[in-house]
Amino acid sequence: MSESKDNSSVSPDLLEGIYTPDDLRQLSPDDLPAVCAALRQQIISTLSVNPGHFASSMGAVELTVALHYVYDTPQDRIVWDVGHQAYAHKLLTGRRDRFSTLRKKGGLSGFPNPSESEYDTFMAGHASNSISAALGMAIADRLTPGHERRRTVAVTGDASISGGLAFEGLNNASNNDNNLLIILNDNDMSIDDNVGALHRYLSRLSTSAGYNRMRYRAYRFLKRHNFVSEKGRGILIRFTNAVKSLVSRRQNIFDGLNIRYFGPIDGHDVKNLVKVLNEIKDMQGPRLLHICTVKGKGYAPAEQNPTVWHAPGKFDPQTGKRIVSDSKIPKWQQIFGHTLVELADNDDRITGITAAMPSGTSMNCMMEKYPLRTFDVGISEGHAVTFAGGLAAAGKRPFVAIYSSFLQRAYDNIIHDVAIQGLPVTFCIDRAGIVGDDGVTHHGLFDLAYMSVIPGLKVCSPMDEASLRNMMYTALHQDGPMAIRYPRGEAFSNDWRKPFRLIEIGKARRLMEGRPGGVAVMTIGPVGHEIAEIAETLKNDNIEIAHYDMRWLRPLDRTAVCEAAARYSAIITVEDGTVNGGLGSAIVDTIAECGLRTPVRKLGTPDNQWVHHGSVSELRADCGYDRGGIITAIRDMDSYCREKEADR
Amino acid sequence: MSESKDNSSVSPDLLEGIYTPDDLRQLSPDDLPAVCAALRQQIISTLSVNPGHFASSMGAVELTVALHYVYDTPQDRIVWDVGHQAYAHKLLTGRRDRFSTLRKKGGLSGFPNPSESEYDTFMAGHASNSISAALGMAIADRLTPGHERRRTVAVTGDASISGGLAFEGLNNASNNDNNLLIILNDNDMSIDDNVGALHRYLSRLSTSAGYNRMRYRAYRFLKRHNFVSEKGRGILIRFTNAVKSLVSRRQNIFDGLNIRYFGPIDGHDVKNLVKVLNEIKDMQGPRLLHICTVKGKGYAPAEQNPTVWHAPGKFDPQTGKRIVSDSKIPKWQQIFGHTLVELADNDDRITGITAAMPSGTSMNCMMEKYPLRTFDVGISEGHAVTFAGGLAAAGKRPFVAIYSSFLQRAYDNIIHDVAIQGLPVTFCIDRAGIVGDDGVTHHGLFDLAYMSVIPGLKVCSPMDEASLRNMMYTALHQDGPMAIRYPRGEAFSNDWRKPFRLIEIGKARRLMEGRPGGVAVMTIGPVGHEIAEIAETLKNDNIEIAHYDMRWLRPLDRTAVCEAAARYSAIITVEDGTVNGGLGSAIVDTIAECGLRTPVRKLGTPDNQWVHHGSVSELRADCGYDRGGIITAIRDMDSYCREKEADR
Repeated sequence: MSESKDNSSVSPDLLEGIYTPDDLRQLSPDDLPAVCAALRQQIISTLSVNPGHFASSMGAVELTVALHYVYDTPQDRIVWDVGHQAYAHKLLTGRRDRFSTLRKKGGLSGFPNPSESEYDTFMAGHASNSISAALGMAIADRLTPGHERRRTVAVTGDASISGGLAFEGLNNASNNDNNLLIILNDNDMSIDDNVGALHRYLSRLSTSAGYNRMRYRAYRFLKRHNFVSEKGRGILIRFTNAVKSLVSRRQNIFDGLNIRYFGPIDGHDVKNLVKVLNEIKDMQGPRLLHICTVKGKGYAPAEQNPTVWHAPGKFDPQTGKRIVSDSKIPKWQQIFGHTLVELADNDDRITGITAAMPSGTSMNCMMEKYPLRTFDVGISEGHAVTFAGGLAAAGKRPFVAIYSSFLQRAYDNIIHDVAIQGLPVTFCIDRAGIVGDDGVTHHGLFDLAYMSVIPGLKVCSPMDEASLRNMMYTALHQDGPMAIRYPRGEAFSNDWRKPFRLIEIGKARRLMEGRPGGVAVMTIGPVGHEIAEIAETLKNDNIEIAHYDMRWLRPLDRTAVCEAAARYSAIITVEDGTVNGGLGSAIVDTIAECGLRTPVRKLGTPDNQWVHHGSVSELRADCGYDRGGIITAIRDMDSYCREKEADR
Repeated sequence: MSESKDNSSVSPDLLEGIYTPDDLRQLSPDDLPAVCAALRQQIISTLSVNPGHFASSMGAVELTVALHYVYDTPQDRIVWDVGHQAYAHKLLTGRRDRFSTLRKKGGLSGFPNPSESEYDTFMAGHASNSISAALGMAIADRLTPGHERRRTVAVTGDASISGGLAFEGLNNASNNDNNLLIILNDNDMSIDDNVGALHRYLSRLSTSAGYNRMRYRAYRFLKRHNFVSEKGRGILIRFTNAVKSLVSRRQNIFDGLNIRYFGPIDGHDVKNLVKVLNEIKDMQGPRLLHICTVKGKGYAPAEQNPTVWHAPGKFDPQTGKRIVSDSKIPKWQQIFGHTLVELADNDDRITGITAAMPSGTSMNCMMEKYPLRTFDVGISEGHAVTFAGGLAAAGKRPFVAIYSSFLQRAYDNIIHDVAIQGLPVTFCIDRAGIVGDDGVTHHGLFDLAYMSVIPGLKVCSPMDEASLRNMMYTALHQDGPMAIRYPRGEAFSNDWRKPFRLIEIGKARRLMEGRPGGVAVMTIGPVGHEIAEIAETLKNDNIEIAHYDMRWLRPLDRTAVCEAAARYSAIITVEDGTVNGGLGSAIVDTIAECGLRTPVRKLGTPDNQWVHHGSVSELRADCGYDRGGIITAIRDMDSYCREKEADR
């Protein structure tokens, strides 16, 4: 690996003249290390005050510079996988002046986004999609007159490539005529430690660098001697295979899939990267270049603890001290994690599963105490769920913690491998609702809707800490699959370690009785917590509301809904997700079924447009279900109720 | 490969004494070939009159017998992948007397189903799930006192193993302590020809059988000499790797994933299968046995044309002549297939994609005429959709034809890789609605619901042939993603090749005006075709109904819905899918939004229970939306309307 430069001696002013890749391509290769150092400085200084994904982007600086230097972007296409490595890419492609707006409302997205820049060729919020998408582009260009010479590069990571979608892409890469280059940016870890056989395999490859150096030299020798005609290619392949076999006695997995493998090479030696990319960029057929990088490269604190520095929050760039909030309020994740351990202490059947997010979900709590009963399956949401189905079929009680938007990847697994069989898997749907600055690809807005159509699946969401604990406890005392959704971020109180109590399945709680003939607010999940405070505010205006914490979307408490629809003159539903297909729709349906026409105002995210990035409160305000939005809706509906009464 | 026996000389009576695997295990290995022949005879004779999946099960007879002979089922677990290879398994596990009820209502399921038998360990309707599920079971047993010696075998196929889920399972198989045996039943084809690099790789392995024979002999030599202790295992692995390298100069992909590889061996030599399984069944750690079989084995017509004989319908067992219906009515699939070619003739941007179902979807029509623009990506629904996203991002107009229940696997790809980016991919959702005898795993009941929450996605369904053609044509003349759903089976008329016409997006058609104050029926899809006839019948009773062919679920024609709700006194919605979250729910929501309370009776599949197998008409009758069910609902609602009028 190359030496780290002393970044402090480099001025970000160097970037002044480089606004687009065209500017970059005017430089000599010898200038590139300084460009890399300046990009790192810019990332450090911006992210220290405006938090974002830090370590991945630091590790991909040289790769980014080399790609834009060698390839004719945006004519040539770079398809990033897991776009949180793409900050240097944003800095180099006409967005440096807006870089400080990263992940802020109206500012740059935290991930590549085609609606933001022509250099962002595809959406890159969920891992493992780059090979399939880039293959589509590479083949499209082959089929389009005048586009045949456009080049496409997919940049994937060693964690992303363990996803089933990436394998499907690899398996199809050599099926058709294309020149796709796949770059495997291998930093030997996911957000947390990387897992799986492929990962161990990549490590073995990386440690056999001697053989690969020899192979690469053999290739260059042959190229110099003009064996690289179509005929020469055959000779070359046979020759390199022979070298491989002799030296390592190993056929590479990628070669086995008909994808020519190059590497591993040092991903921080930008000049060598440029050289290698130039050598292989016009080769025919699909190929993979394996580069080794260090997550957090160039910033010592991040190199030492890349999991923490994946998204470190604000920090002091000089000292590397993270500016951590001293809030004592626990996160929903922590309550989940500690509760799961408490339950597992008393029930051997409990197993825990996460898909590459042990620290994000707090599944690491159980992993530390019960390593044999806890499974991090890597970026494999489908496998996580089907594997849980297998565990449950053999008598276990798996708790699967996956982020809501990633669980979309396991939709069929939930239906086919769990729900049809009525298996007792508990889905702990983390990051449900608006997540904030990660934006459009990461909000968990659809889970209530897509879960609620599956027969036999119970779906609930806790309003408070005790409810989350009791829902997890209740999951163990019922049969069949159950889903519990809760959001990202802090709960409300530090006083949550209370004894477990069973809660009644399908039963809502009426928390405030309100005024008959007035407005009833029906909520699901933590958003209900705000209603008590809102009610206090409104009392000053003589508005007295009823409040139901519905708790269960499935089974829905139809009795409570019909009673409320009869007793109150207007209903407002509030949920942290799409207004279509979730709680609001279920309540409208139920009211119609009981023959009433109490008007319902559904609050939630809009069903006809995407929610982008910003703070949670900004985005909820935009969608009309922040505190102000809820109050406005209540006032409106209350006026309607009073007019109706006056009419009588 | 072993010789085929002359089946005709074998009597199925041999099976009389074999009701469960315990009976089978009383026999000598020498008796097993006759058992296999008798099982084949039974499958041939039963399926000739009661159609089902034929060729796959014929190819798996010896494997099935060997597994139940060697393993202590049901204590040991066999997890079948794509259960249509499991008929011999059903015959050997206490269900022979009911085998003639296969796929009939109330009879045996066409796939393994845990609710049917303790020998059916997991649901096996969708491919590629067996490794993940079996791994869950194998690990659960390790964690359960007294279960440590239970064995688990996953039986997957060469097509199934190309799915991303199977790869995720393989990648995780060596992460934990387990003794999972994976059997790769390689018949060198999917339902259609197999595709992908892994498939070609497996072919190469299969043709290097000499090396593997040698390796297997080396293993047996070592075992005889007691090297197979824990220490010996290490020596053994190094030794076999060395043999491998010397002989083939190739490291196996599975070995690369830390799964010990054995094979390939002849999957029709039942005595040798028994021997090999006995040798490897108590080895430690995950391992894979690669067996080669012939799809349709033992029945010449099926061996010669396995794609046709995948599910051949009725046939004459003596002559092998299939009893094909002489219906001149085209299938929806054929209309789709020929229409796509017509469109592609005039629009170079059109590309076609299918996931292992070229003949099932009729994508083979385009594949024949435009092989470079048509892609069968194998069992990789996620890749199919993301790849389409890549094609669309580069200017193409992909049409992706996937069965509704399989498309559940690509839910996140639809959202993340197409819809958020607004890419113009057209999803042609085949097998939407109740599919009949394939049953619970194959009905396409959720697509309207899970599609309808995605912002920007247009969702429609044609009532008739012309509408399907025009919807496909319209998809080309709009921007953004669009989904068109249509069912399995025959359309209505042979007269469908009419000129293309654009249809208005989001606009319903009122086909019958009915009686103001009476009943309006609102349908989506082909089910609407029956309403005209029903209306004729009801005229005799002086019931005059209105009928709206809604065409679009998204955008819904709100104007039409509100007008209908105002003009008529009751509404009946009919859709071939769940009543929750689809057309009925959207109409109820819309009526509530326009402040009306016209009662709505929603017909479709129930939202709280699964629909099992049987004929389409039987199942629709059960769900209450066959002709009779619709008529009953109309009569009910018409009485309600008349009472209401009388009350005034």
